Amino acid sequence: MSGFSFTVLANDGGARTGLIKTARGEIRTPAFMPIGTVGTVKAMLPESVRETGADIILGNTYHLMLRPGAERVAKLGGLHKFMNWPRPILTDSGGFQVMSLAQLRRIDEQGVSFQSHLDGAAYRLTPERSMEIQALLGSDIHMVLDECTPFPSGERETEISMELSMRWAQRSKAAFQAAPGRALFGIVQGGIFPDLRRRSAEALKSIGFDGYAVGGLAVGEGQARMFDVLDVTAPCLPADRPRYLMGVGKPDDLIGAVMRGMDMFDCVLPTRSGRNGQAFTRRGPVNLRNARHTEDIRPLDEACRCLCCRDYSRAYLHHLVKAEEILASMLITWHNLTYYQDLMQGMRDAIAGQRLGAYARAALDLYARGDIDAA
Amino acid sequence: MSGFSFTVLANDGGARTGLIKTARGEIRTPAFMPIGTVGTVKAMLPESVRETGADIILGNTYHLMLRPGAERVAKLGGLHKFMNWPRPILTDSGGFQVMSLAQLRRIDEQGVSFQSHLDGAAYRLTPERSMEIQALLGSDIHMVLDECTPFPSGERETEISMELSMRWAQRSKAAFQAAPGRALFGIVQGGIFPDLRRRSAEALKSIGFDGYAVGGLAVGEGQARMFDVLDVTAPCLPADRPRYLMGVGKPDDLIGAVMRGMDMFDCVLPTRSGRNGQAFTRRGPVNLRNARHTEDIRPLDEACRCLCCRDYSRAYLHHLVKAEEILASMLITWHNLTYYQDLMQGMRDAIAGQRLGAYARAALDLYARGDIDAA
Repeated sequence: MSGFSFTVLANDGGARTGLIKTARGEIRTPAFMPIGTVGTVKAMLPESVRETGADIILGNTYHLMLRPGAERVAKLGGLHKFMNWPRPILTDSGGFQVMSLAQLRRIDEQGVSFQSHLDGAAYRLTPERSMEIQALLGSDIHMVLDECTPFPSGERETEISMELSMRWAQRSKAAFQAAPGRALFGIVQGGIFPDLRRRSAEALKSIGFDGYAVGGLAVGEGQARMFDVLDVTAPCLPADRPRYLMGVGKPDDLIGAVMRGMDMFDCVLPTRSGRNGQAFTRRGPVNLRNARHTEDIRPLDEACRCLCCRDYSRAYLHHLVKAEEILASMLITWHNLTYYQDLMQGMRDAIAGQRLGAYARAALDLYARGDIDAA
Repeated sequence: MSGFSFTVLANDGGARTGLIKTARGEIRTPAFMPIGTVGTVKAMLPESVRETGADIILGNTYHLMLRPGAERVAKLGGLHKFMNWPRPILTDSGGFQVMSLAQLRRIDEQGVSFQSHLDGAAYRLTPERSMEIQALLGSDIHMVLDECTPFPSGERETEISMELSMRWAQRSKAAFQAAPGRALFGIVQGGIFPDLRRRSAEALKSIGFDGYAVGGLAVGEGQARMFDVLDVTAPCLPADRPRYLMGVGKPDDLIGAVMRGMDMFDCVLPTRSGRNGQAFTRRGPVNLRNARHTEDIRPLDEACRCLCCRDYSRAYLHHLVKAEEILASMLITWHNLTYYQDLMQGMRDAIAGQRLGAYARAALDLYARGDIDAA
């Protein structure tokens, strides 16, 4: 584990701000990780991703194992070199996408068999193979293979699934190819059931990981239940290890989760929405397809420092969205990622200044007020 | 015409290199103008377009008059401000796209009526309206409205069409809203018929324009006939005015046209090909979809200075093209535009050094050799 560390710099209530060190650079927490699914954060150059403030991005094992293939990425020098992102990369285990994208999947005690959604080719993913793939990609933070329990599921069904995930976590740990600065995170499962979440956290702690993720949320349970799960789970996790809430979320989700002690996040929302003409701003979401922007010379978000808000009007963005221009995806994604990173920086500063509560209330109030009455 | 000028700096055979001055900046000739159809050079930020070496871009009157509309662009501060490109813009007259894209078009002596390909709305374009639209957009170089004669057409048919274009050129000149540094170019028509081309050039010279374009080429007549037309037409045009070959072309077209005295070019090839995984390199075109690139760690063009060739392998570009990632369009367009600008710079330098013949032979030889045997 040498070369990987996490230091809490300040606490504010349940929230904390800190610094993760990896061989490829530091990650300021709370941290938002843009998604680089198939070796690119969609519609962005990597230097632009960095310019938004990102310290780390996420790569998807499922997509990369299918195309171009993990062995091929390794042969080409690893994922960082391949995609020209020299900073930290976290890779997921592949399990979540197997369940949501692959065809003809069959899960058994040893792993999961499936067919590629691209060409129907047959694959097998096990905890051991997931560890191997993530090492071939050269990622800095590996995730254990787990089964993402569907929502809704009954308690017994969730328990069986969680217990399988814990056995796979044990096998993932055993198969993990340790390297200087490389980390392995466990994933707490257990659905919306407090006892299962606690048992899962205990099981992972007894195995021992460099960080702990909370999985199986943001799958339809709603924000209130998600926060309930975090209220139960976060206190069960070691205070001196990073806590990663997977696949979350909307700006208000992030604020609530940081207040509950979570340190890392990833979500497709800022990038996917950016390609759909949907922007996130301090005054809430803005749909640039809406005709009210047609002659609006104001920037998307007057408080934003990004290139999109510096150089372009809402009228122009509306025009690009209507004309389905690639530049629309480029500019709105750039803005959305900047907004997300600025939100994280705002929370880091607020925690350091012991004023996260006031910061969160003000940000949530402005966000909920909406954009219609802006200026 | 004050503020617009053209100075020939050096001649080499029929070719020349020079400098056009406009109110919004200088244009080094021979010049290639990237296409910014609807207010964006597709998949490129304007600062990236500039970084490739472009001094001027082209905007399409037809597209912009339909969406967002010329009056709206004017209300929003003009096309330069709208799209964040502060340098020169040339706008075409709209005529060519009306003929190739619009529905239910009817041409008469006064102008052309058509329906938008976007929503079927009815429009009318006349020489006077084209001048008005180009002034509303705020472009630096306006083009007269003409009729682009279809190929093939008989001599009499071509003559009738050319004569209509000459009457429209006269009306365009009369309607042109002169402004400091703003220029109006006439367009020579006449198909593949030398006498008609000569008569058209004479007609335009007697009206008097700031520059002279050769239109109606690259419409299927082939390179040999295009060069024949240039051999006849270029000597008929004033030596002290820029000569613009519209809609051309491939790298070897550009070389041959520069050798025949042409100064300005525009073409969708580098941008459109970039979005289709087709790259232009010093060793000829390269199809990045081809499986031979799958594990090729070399850059697209080892002699290229662009960001794509500096930071990315062919293997990565192949991967992006296969995965239909936006970044593929961004990177290959960037490369293609850089290649085109470097070709123009190479010709400018060669003309200044009285060695265009040798430069052209070497470039054409390397280009024709092809990429397969590279490295």
